[in-house]
Parts: sequence; C-alpha cells; structure tokens
Amino acid sequence: MKLRGPFIGVIGAGSCSARIAALACDVGREIARNHGVLVCGGLGGVMAAAAKGAKELGGYTVGILPGPNIGKANEYIDFPIATNMSHARNAIIVRTAEVLIAVGGSYGTLSEMALALKIGKGVVALQPQFSVPGVRIVPTPLEAVTEALALLDAGRQPAVFG
Amino acid sequence: MKLRGPFIGVIGAGSCSARIAALACDVGREIARNHGVLVCGGLGGVMAAAAKGAKELGGYTVGILPGPNIGKANEYIDFPIATNMSHARNAIIVRTAEVLIAVGGSYGTLSEMALALKIGKGVVALQPQFSVPGVRIVPTPLEAVTEALALLDAGRQPAVFG
Amino acid sequence: MKLRGPFIGVIGAGSCSARIAALACDVGREIARNHGVLVCGGLGGVMAAAAKGAKELGGYTVGILPGPNIGKANEYIDFPIATNMSHARNAIIVRTAEVLIAVGGSYGTLSEMALALKIGKGVVALQPQFSVPGVRIVPTPLEAVTEALALLDAGRQPAVFG
Amino acid sequence: MKLRGPFIGVIGAGSCSARIAALACDVGREIARNHGVLVCGGLGGVMAAAAKGAKELGGYTVGILPGPNIGKANEYIDFPIATNMSHARNAIIVRTAEVLIAVGGSYGTLSEMALALKIGKGVVALQPQFSVPGVRIVPTPLEAVTEALALLDAGRQPAVFG
Repeated sequence: MKLRGPFIGVIGAGSCSARIAALACDVGREIARNHGVLVCGGLGGVMAAAAKGAKELGGYTVGILPGPNIGKANEYIDFPIATNMSHARNAIIVRTAEVLIAVGGSYGTLSEMALALKIGKGVVALQPQFSVPGVRIVPTPLEAVTEALALLDAGRQPAVFG
Repeated sequence: MKLRGPFIGVIGAGSCSARIAALACDVGREIARNHGVLVCGGLGGVMAAAAKGAKELGGYTVGILPGPNIGKANEYIDFPIATNMSHARNAIIVRTAEVLIAVGGSYGTLSEMALALKIGKGVVALQPQFSVPGVRIVPTPLEAVTEALALLDAGRQPAVFG
Repeated sequence: MKLRGPFIGVIGAGSCSARIAALACDVGREIARNHGVLVCGGLGGVMAAAAKGAKELGGYTVGILPGPNIGKANEYIDFPIATNMSHARNAIIVRTAEVLIAVGGSYGTLSEMALALKIGKGVVALQPQFSVPGVRIVPTPLEAVTEALALLDAGRQPAVFG
Repeated sequence: MKLRGPFIGVIGAGSCSARIAALACDVGREIARNHGVLVCGGLGGVMAAAAKGAKELGGYTVGILPGPNIGKANEYIDFPIATNMSHARNAIIVRTAEVLIAVGGSYGTLSEMALALKIGKGVVALQPQFSVPGVRIVPTPLEAVTEALALLDAGRQPAVFG
C-alpha cells in the first residue's frame, strides 16, 4: 500500500485574519479530500488553519519548522521537522512540495512564491498580497486545490536541479 | 486523536552488509511496535532496511533527504523531505529525532552521533564502527529500542538550544 | 586596524544583458570606493560584474555559493563560501549583508528581496523586474550605493532575531 | 593579483584552556605565514585564538557563524558569514576549507572531523579528544600546518560531489 499522495504546500503568514484563516482551513480540507499530504511551515496563522482543515478530513500534515524543537509545531501537525535554520527552511518547503498554494501572505510568502517559480514549481494563490507573474490567482479554496492538482497532472512536477 | 509518537532517528551507512541490514530492519520493526515514528535519511542501506521494518508493522516513516527530489526516497518512506542541502541535512535529522539509534555506520554516522551528543540527544548504537564516549552500545535491536525509549522517559528530551 | 567595512549585498541574475552588467559593475565600484565589502552569490551575470567592479577599485568580495566547490566562484571573488545548499544559500546572503542592492533580477532576486524585507534589511533596486513595496528604486549605481549607505546610517542594521 | 591562498579550516571548541588557545594561536600564525586564509566558526575559544594568531601576521580570517548576526563574530574575524543555521553551519565550514586542522575539541569538533573525512577532505589534529581513523595527529602547530599543506599538495583537494 502506497501512503504517499501528492505533496501540496500551503504557504502564508504566521498570523492572519479570520477570513484568511477560513480560506486556509478550506484549502486544507480540499487537500485531504483529494488524498494529498499537506506540507507547510508548521507554525500559526495560515499554517495552523490549513493543517486544522486537513486533519478534520483525516489528511496527513507535515510541518517544516524554522526552529530547533518539534514541540513548537502547531497541534495539527502530524510530522514536524525541526530544521533550526530560520527562513532557510522555506527552501525546504518549496523543494518538498510538488505544487504550492499561497493564502494571503506577506514578505515571507512572497519569498517562497518566487523561489518556487525559480525552481519550476507551480504556484496558485488565493487573495495574494503581491502580484507575481507566473502565479495563478484563483477565487476559492476549491479552485485552488483543483488548479494545483491540474498543474501537477500537466507534468509540472518537482524540478530536480537548482 | 494524536498521531505523533516518539520520533526515533535511525542512522547508518547508505550501503551495508546483509547482517547490518537485518539489524536495522529489526530496529525499524521494534520502533513501529512501540508506536514510534522512524526518522532517517531516506536513502538506501541502513535507512531503507529500517524503514522497511517499520512499514512491515504499520509504522510511519520520515526520510530527510540530502537531494532536491522527494522521488529519490527509498520505497518505504511515507514522508520524504527534500532538503537539497547535502550533508547539512544530518543536522535536521538529529534535531527532529528525539533520540537516535546508530546501526553500524561510517564517517557520516559518526558525524551524526557526535552532533546528537553535542545538542543533548541520547544515542544508542548497535555494532558501531567507532567508539564515542556517551553512546550506549547495545547488543540487539530489541535492546536498542528499549534503551532509546528509556533515555526519552528519563527526560533526555530534545535540546531546545544549540 | 579594523578591516571590516559595511557589508553590502548585490543580488541579481546569474546571466544578464551587457547593460545590466555595466550597472552592476558600477555598483561594485561604488561599494569599493566607500570601503564596503561586497557580498554576493559568487556566480556569473550580475554577481561577476559587481565583483569585477569592486576589485577594480581594490575592494574585497565575498561569494556565497550554492554548490560544494569554492573553485566555482567567479574570478573576482576573494572569499568564496561553499554552502552546498542550493537556493537556501540566499538566506545566508541576506543575513550576512547589512543592506542589499538588487540589479535587474529574476525570480531568485525577487525571493531574496522579499526575504531581506521580511527580516528588516533595507533593499535598494536598479532596474527591477518586479515591483515590491518597501524596496527603494533608484536610477543610477551612484544613487544605489548612496541610498544603501543612508539606510544603514539610519539604523536599519541587521535584524538580530531568528 | 590573486588574493586567494589555500583555505585552511581551524576547528575546535568555543571555550578552551589557555594551553589549547596557545596552540590554536600558533596554528593561526603559521597559516598566515604561509599566505593561507583561515576559515573557522567565528566564535570564541579555539576559533578566536586561531583568528588572533592569523591577524598578528596579517592573514585573512573568515568566520562562518551559527547565528543571524555578523556582529557576534570575534574581533579577529575579517569576513563574518551569518548562516543562522546553528550546527548545520559546520557543513559549510568543512566544504569551504580545503583542509582542516582540529585543535583539542569536543563533540562539535568530532562531528566536523567526521564530516570532513566523509567528503574527502584531509584532517590534521593537535591534542585531539577523540581518536578517529584517517585523522593525522601531529605534536606541534608548525607540523600541523606543514602537514595540512602537504595534504593539499598531494591532491586531496575539495571533493566536488554532493
């Protein structure tokens, strides 16, 4: 039995409005409904909301943390990874996820979106703060996950070289 | 429902003898029997053997890879992490695991054992190639996992600072 | 005698037009004229042009490389650092530089600009490909370095937190 | 004019006895006398003593720091690199140096020695705490640097593979 579904990254700010959190939660639910594995930064805000949504539907969640302690992951993370590399862990999130969905976001999210595009990963965005050429902007969580899966099916799989 | 069990690292060479592989496989089985999550480097040799053992008993496996592509994880890894950081990923394995079990090993394993001790993690070894003060040498896979769990219970939990 | 001048990062694409290279070269010269240390990614394009300019006026150059081999630095780099961490080395450039100047640029540069702003470093841009709120756009290399030094003097020194 | 001499790493504990510090200082002097660039971890103990020695004879010093702030380098470091990656920065020291000299040392030093041997770099040791096959133990700072340079000349240059 193969456990591994598509690895879908969800990126966004560590604190966010209730409206953005609700979108992130729905993104997490849709990922789980499609048997995807949620990959995120493991902290609060968008990361916690998306992981909460994924767990509500029985999905698996991976949290790639900036700090040294797996105990600092939010409570919805099944598999915390303690990088102790601060923002350099963003590069690991972007490499590990096969496609990324940004929800809202700040400078950190912009940095991840740009890095994902740089290495050839597809990026879908809900309510982006910044406009980046190459990012697919969608209006709803359902469309975000549908579009992310379509990007994967279209062969925009992980780049193998930097 | 809390998925997270103790995170137990298994470290060892990327290629190994059948005898060492059999020990690693039994270590993986014992980890799964104790509801632990296996954390390893995701490649071959000891890493693949331990992950195979863990999957035989339904355990979860995390593989923290040196390269850029989750597809390069061995077939027994449920959750591959693509660090693209070569040997620097060893530091992430050592941080993420709450306790470590070395099986056989080479210079890379010695490097991980030393780093684990440096940051206060317990290290248990089966058939070590190198003798390092502070490492608990045990004769069997069962004793390795029992000793690792005992080290955790004794409060030698993850160090929070380097 | 204190060797250390201000550490000024120059970021931009690994290949670029002659026009962008000329701008980068002039930025490097201005940094050296102001006794700054040039910090860059150590490869070609904007990085090599800026380092060439700095060396023409006797400045020091640091190249933080994505690969494993210091021999891959461009010929104008005095102090190559071999991270072997691919794009994660961008985070090290942004941490090490006290202020950053982007020249032209692509997704990789955008990623660095966003990360710099995220951790509180000032960013000045010449001929940016992308518009990012918070980045100071300037028309000439002289103004780029003058503005970068002014940002430093104004106390926008390196963020200390992780 | 080519600035770049051989890049020689000096590794050892962040605090040490006066006797070990004196050895490290002499190692730094010998490196500078041979026009080498000293690469170290940038902090105290052996790192500061070796950098002090190198500066006494006008050598250049690079400090690859575990933290986020170049201001935390010891006062003898010309070129501090802020990795903000804790012990994972050890892998960068080992990659950047073409050959390594360990002075005294603890678990962190052992980790670096093992990693260096793993990737094919020569390692020379003065007063090692741990015995590692493959490390050349020498009695004096002069012999340490002579042996390190001989290892380089013998073609044990930086490994290129990841």
